[in-house]
Amino acid sequence: MTAVASAAVSSRVADLVSRMTLEEKLAQITGFWEDEKGDVVAPLQGEVSVTGGLEEATAHGIGHFTRIYGTTPLDADARAATLWERQRALVEGTRLGIPAIVHEEILTGLSAWKAATYPGPLTWGAAFDPELVARMGALIGRDCRALGVHQGLAPVVDVVRDPRWGRVEECIAEDPYLVGELGTSYVEGVQSEGVHATLKHFVGYSASRSGRNFGPVSMGPRELRDIMMVPFEMAVIDGGVKSVMHAYTEIDGMPTAADPTLLEGVLRDEWGFDGVVVADYFGVAFLHLLHGIAEDLSEAAALALTAGIDVELPTGDAYLAPLAAAVRSGRVPEALVDRAVGRILAQKEQLGLLDERFNGPSPTGVELDGPEHREVARLLAERGIVLLSNDGTLPLGEDGCPSIAVIGPNADRYQAMFGCYSFANHVLDKRPGTELGLEVPTVLEALRSEMGGATYARGCEVQGDDRSGFDEAVAAAREASVAVMVMGDQAGLFGRGTSGEGCDTDSLELPGVQRELIEAVLETGTPVVLVLVTGRPYAVGWALERCAAVVQAFFPGEEGARAIAGVLSGRVNPSGRLPVSIPRSTGAQPFTYIHPRLGADSDVTNLSSVVPMTFGEGLSYTTFAYEGLEVADAATDGAISLAVTVRNTGQRQGDEVVQVYARQRRASVTRPLAQLVGFARVPLEAGASVRVEFDIPAARLAFTGRDLVRSVEPGDVELWVGTPRIRHAEGVVSLVGERVAATRESRRRTLSRVR
Amino acid sequence: MTAVASAAVSSRVADLVSRMTLEEKLAQITGFWEDEKGDVVAPLQGEVSVTGGLEEATAHGIGHFTRIYGTTPLDADARAATLWERQRALVEGTRLGIPAIVHEEILTGLSAWKAATYPGPLTWGAAFDPELVARMGALIGRDCRALGVHQGLAPVVDVVRDPRWGRVEECIAEDPYLVGELGTSYVEGVQSEGVHATLKHFVGYSASRSGRNFGPVSMGPRELRDIMMVPFEMAVIDGGVKSVMHAYTEIDGMPTAADPTLLEGVLRDEWGFDGVVVADYFGVAFLHLLHGIAEDLSEAAALALTAGIDVELPTGDAYLAPLAAAVRSGRVPEALVDRAVGRILAQKEQLGLLDERFNGPSPTGVELDGPEHREVARLLAERGIVLLSNDGTLPLGEDGCPSIAVIGPNADRYQAMFGCYSFANHVLDKRPGTELGLEVPTVLEALRSEMGGATYARGCEVQGDDRSGFDEAVAAAREASVAVMVMGDQAGLFGRGTSGEGCDTDSLELPGVQRELIEAVLETGTPVVLVLVTGRPYAVGWALERCAAVVQAFFPGEEGARAIAGVLSGRVNPSGRLPVSIPRSTGAQPFTYIHPRLGADSDVTNLSSVVPMTFGEGLSYTTFAYEGLEVADAATDGAISLAVTVRNTGQRQGDEVVQVYARQRRASVTRPLAQLVGFARVPLEAGASVRVEFDIPAARLAFTGRDLVRSVEPGDVELWVGTPRIRHAEGVVSLVGERVAATRESRRRTLSRVR
Repeated sequence: MTAVASAAVSSRVADLVSRMTLEEKLAQITGFWEDEKGDVVAPLQGEVSVTGGLEEATAHGIGHFTRIYGTTPLDADARAATLWERQRALVEGTRLGIPAIVHEEILTGLSAWKAATYPGPLTWGAAFDPELVARMGALIGRDCRALGVHQGLAPVVDVVRDPRWGRVEECIAEDPYLVGELGTSYVEGVQSEGVHATLKHFVGYSASRSGRNFGPVSMGPRELRDIMMVPFEMAVIDGGVKSVMHAYTEIDGMPTAADPTLLEGVLRDEWGFDGVVVADYFGVAFLHLLHGIAEDLSEAAALALTAGIDVELPTGDAYLAPLAAAVRSGRVPEALVDRAVGRILAQKEQLGLLDERFNGPSPTGVELDGPEHREVARLLAERGIVLLSNDGTLPLGEDGCPSIAVIGPNADRYQAMFGCYSFANHVLDKRPGTELGLEVPTVLEALRSEMGGATYARGCEVQGDDRSGFDEAVAAAREASVAVMVMGDQAGLFGRGTSGEGCDTDSLELPGVQRELIEAVLETGTPVVLVLVTGRPYAVGWALERCAAVVQAFFPGEEGARAIAGVLSGRVNPSGRLPVSIPRSTGAQPFTYIHPRLGADSDVTNLSSVVPMTFGEGLSYTTFAYEGLEVADAATDGAISLAVTVRNTGQRQGDEVVQVYARQRRASVTRPLAQLVGFARVPLEAGASVRVEFDIPAARLAFTGRDLVRSVEPGDVELWVGTPRIRHAEGVVSLVGERVAATRESRRRTLSRVR
Repeated sequence: MTAVASAAVSSRVADLVSRMTLEEKLAQITGFWEDEKGDVVAPLQGEVSVTGGLEEATAHGIGHFTRIYGTTPLDADARAATLWERQRALVEGTRLGIPAIVHEEILTGLSAWKAATYPGPLTWGAAFDPELVARMGALIGRDCRALGVHQGLAPVVDVVRDPRWGRVEECIAEDPYLVGELGTSYVEGVQSEGVHATLKHFVGYSASRSGRNFGPVSMGPRELRDIMMVPFEMAVIDGGVKSVMHAYTEIDGMPTAADPTLLEGVLRDEWGFDGVVVADYFGVAFLHLLHGIAEDLSEAAALALTAGIDVELPTGDAYLAPLAAAVRSGRVPEALVDRAVGRILAQKEQLGLLDERFNGPSPTGVELDGPEHREVARLLAERGIVLLSNDGTLPLGEDGCPSIAVIGPNADRYQAMFGCYSFANHVLDKRPGTELGLEVPTVLEALRSEMGGATYARGCEVQGDDRSGFDEAVAAAREASVAVMVMGDQAGLFGRGTSGEGCDTDSLELPGVQRELIEAVLETGTPVVLVLVTGRPYAVGWALERCAAVVQAFFPGEEGARAIAGVLSGRVNPSGRLPVSIPRSTGAQPFTYIHPRLGADSDVTNLSSVVPMTFGEGLSYTTFAYEGLEVADAATDGAISLAVTVRNTGQRQGDEVVQVYARQRRASVTRPLAQLVGFARVPLEAGASVRVEFDIPAARLAFTGRDLVRSVEPGDVELWVGTPRIRHAEGVVSLVGERVAATRESRRRTLSRVR
């Protein structure tokens, strides 16, 4: 058992805890989730134990209200009124008068009816733009605050490890440093408005076996620390994140929900995290129900509480009666409960909740999708679209192309713009007929608006084997001078889509008969511009070879269709870079660009691992060149300076994403052939150049050695500007001095300056 | 650095070591490999450093002669004469007069021209027959001894983890206990003749990422110990194996060749191994060349020697000049060299080599493929063929079927009977025109001999997209009353085949256009009996549904074709059980039957993991029933008794493989839903029954807990007879008492008795 440290809480909180009954304590470390009728929401009902209504659930207070806005399509004003009433009841109707923390999903915007829906995280990854992500985070935080929401369940900073997993669309990238940069920026944005962000999912979830959701993870401590933990570490140390959610997963047989070496050891003792660890929904009960390491819910509660899960969500299936029984029987020391209660009360104190009375009017008319939301949604979508290939067919020309045939199942559906945690696909999909309440054009509409008339044929659905629309689509393509085919995923939950939570795949071909449709249209000889709107990268190497151009968008949000149309017309010069590699094949998984030499091609296997396009790649309508790369040696506890000049050598303005990669030539354990250590998005007018300077902490190259200490080793390091496999300019530096452990300080972000 | 323990060697060896020069020492811990012209064999030439000829290489003595018989097709008598001459030269022409250890590949028989070639290891796995494997091992050992071969490089006891890997054909099964039982039996057989067996490859090799040979392994200590190490542990503790070969692989960034915690810590300190650790070919140099954790060959040598690799094979690329430099410069203590030298000299002493003079005549006329070889090869092939499905079409009838069409690329090629480490496919494939020198019928020949005339059409090749033979095959099928389609792999090395070392795959469909050919023949309506002769399981779920019957053989050896013909005719009642699951799909990898609950189907993923057929399954021409299962509780440091009666309820004699599985219901870490804990092959006449009793050490259920100690935990254990997913009879026992660490003693084999 972990030593029960007395939480560093204020005397006010300590006093509160000392006066609380066990029931009051347990109420504070659980949530309550009701639907619009007041019924408990329990997607896994029958397996969990909470049944009572609001009154029973809040008799002793309550820790969290779960998804007040994000559960059903009700107007924000009305929900706010209900919420204020509920909070007032807690303040006035319970002995201690402590309001609840209100948490919501905020992965792609506040998950509330009619609220702005931004591009999904893979689009952030493609945009390589931390400032813009921070700005989006701040807007989300502002809206949360306005509506009385205190905590948002995002960002997901799981590092993509296998494109088969359905939740890849919720992740940012396959590079841990990029995930860390953008995740940290998101946290900083949200928290700048006084709202608490929540890192998901600590840790290892994205490496589930064969990409099946919740599948066991085979992983050792080095990969866990040097790949999976890096973004969490950055968001804790640099971002000061206030909350962390555990991962459902088991790593090497050990469920993280029961692992104090992670939730207390790494998070708090090593990184200094002092916020609250919340359970992923039902994750405590799953220790009994799915992992089988707890005899019953009581033991599950004991294991999770001991491990460091402070608050059970969405409801108190294990932390109410079962945990009470464990405490009363002496199986769990009450001091462990006090530790958790102290932490959530400290969080409430920080949020000012201990002094709130909710006796004023509830907010009304909060603008949830105004011009500022739209601008950020547009900029992020525009910067996050990746041009994968182009034989010159793109741009189609702003003046319009005389005859465009728009084809495909994602051409005329706004749902295709959103991921599985959007309100549209998370909530409204179960309520057909409910209006979206947002102005969201489809790609067809946006393209017609941008470029004039275009014919349209759906051709096929996202899923299924219905080919009855092929003929119409082929005919439309024959009549046109270019076919724009908008293909890809429909996000959904637990099998109700082709991407999203519980929508894993064992094939990385485009879903359904989409490839067949594309090939049928290619047969016409009409040039095909393929627009992929997906939640994961698909194995489209064949399409890169055969289509005139391929554009990749990852659920680009409410302004996504206009951004796609802008890229097609040429109004927008594409500047996104792949946040995930385009897979070679289904059978080549798992694969990401980060691997040691033996993850690359060699004489000892017949199988190539070369992918059609790798992380960091993406085209522009202009061209860039590099010169004058300068690097300087650094101490193992210092920082590497790198400067390079980048020039726009083409005919029009464009943004370049300057990417710096490194490879340590020799180390005590194997090291990747390439790892991203810095980047900068640089806008450049035609002909213009700038010098970009980077200060790269040597600790960016830290890795977990034989002794399991994360350290920087001396030695030669190759550095280059380009992508993992293209070196536009390169140099070699020596890291000099002794091997040094990476410290909390040394692990901070890479700095870049553009002159 | 590991403490340099003084090896427990005799005073004679200690004295020898004390008198040796550094050059003499280094010579003893390296090998020499020449081809028939006396040139050094170096498949990776240019990357390694040895160039001199025999005289130079043996001037100071030599540790090993590499593959005297297994390199080129030369008569054993002549090779023996050469070998004796070489040995005599060492005895008489070097200062210390120490002969060399001669090692050969012995995976499927002694790899020498015209020597018996037994079924491959997957067939051993399918046969579930330890005694027969031991008998084969003894024959191999006898032949080795007769020819002056002291050490054989087998068995491979890597546990199958991913069917995409090419070396799956060299492995025994996906169940660690079955691998351990059969691997240990093989060791005992070989070593009963005074020849030393070598466990390959310690450890983790078979779990390479996406099945690519040498790919990095993501794995934590529990999976490593509880799955991958189990067979090694059994073969060391129960089998007393004399040598172990390290794995090329890196686990979680750490190459095993440089890991003293494995090669010294686990092997010697924990398990008490006291033999010699040899390098896999070029594995020491690879620390520099492929893993990049050594600056040069000198550092590679230092790392490997320190880690516990005693002998470098096949030649002294790193352990000669580079290691000498490291010792002379003080980077490597000479005591580490002495440790290794002490071990190999102790091995030579055990083998009697220190007293051999080789002044007698070399052996001639050793029978390498006589009646006894043939009988063992036949029995193992017959018992190791698995009947996957059968609608009643099989058996075809011993009297012959009036019209059989034999079709397929493996129908009339003897090479299809052998794996990549057979002499036929390892050596002769590079020497077209050289006679095989063994009587090996093809399936076509065996079937014609067994059942009279049959038409034949190849239809297609194993690989490639040539469909020009389809029409002939379809026509032949149309004319016949049954089509026997013999499909599958051609074993080879490094891309020269569809299975074998360096022949990995990213598709689990049958290679080339084989599926298309089968489907074309199925279209005729003629019943198809599909015979798969492969080195890995393929995703043939579709064929199980559509073919009249499917028979699976895994490279069944020189008697394999006759065994297949016997199964088809009904002369042989099939009794093999799958040693590896038939994959669901390429995209469902990695997968094996051993997984915790979340590796199975659940509500949290849309993807099923159910396979068409699982480990342990296989049909017979008779039927069996179980009754009277009795189990008794046991102490955590005791043994579980299980008894069950099995009856042949059909009309003819048959062998049943009684398999006992267990599941611990709750433990401190997640446990598999099913794990094999005992088995017995039971021959039964029609109507007969026997009672089978098992003593299952509780330590069979040991696993590595949170504290990384492998222990038995108390609790309820479900036990059943059947397969991982079929329970013919079941019971529950309690393991009672405290959690106890599994000891060397407690980890011994399960015992079974048939009454």
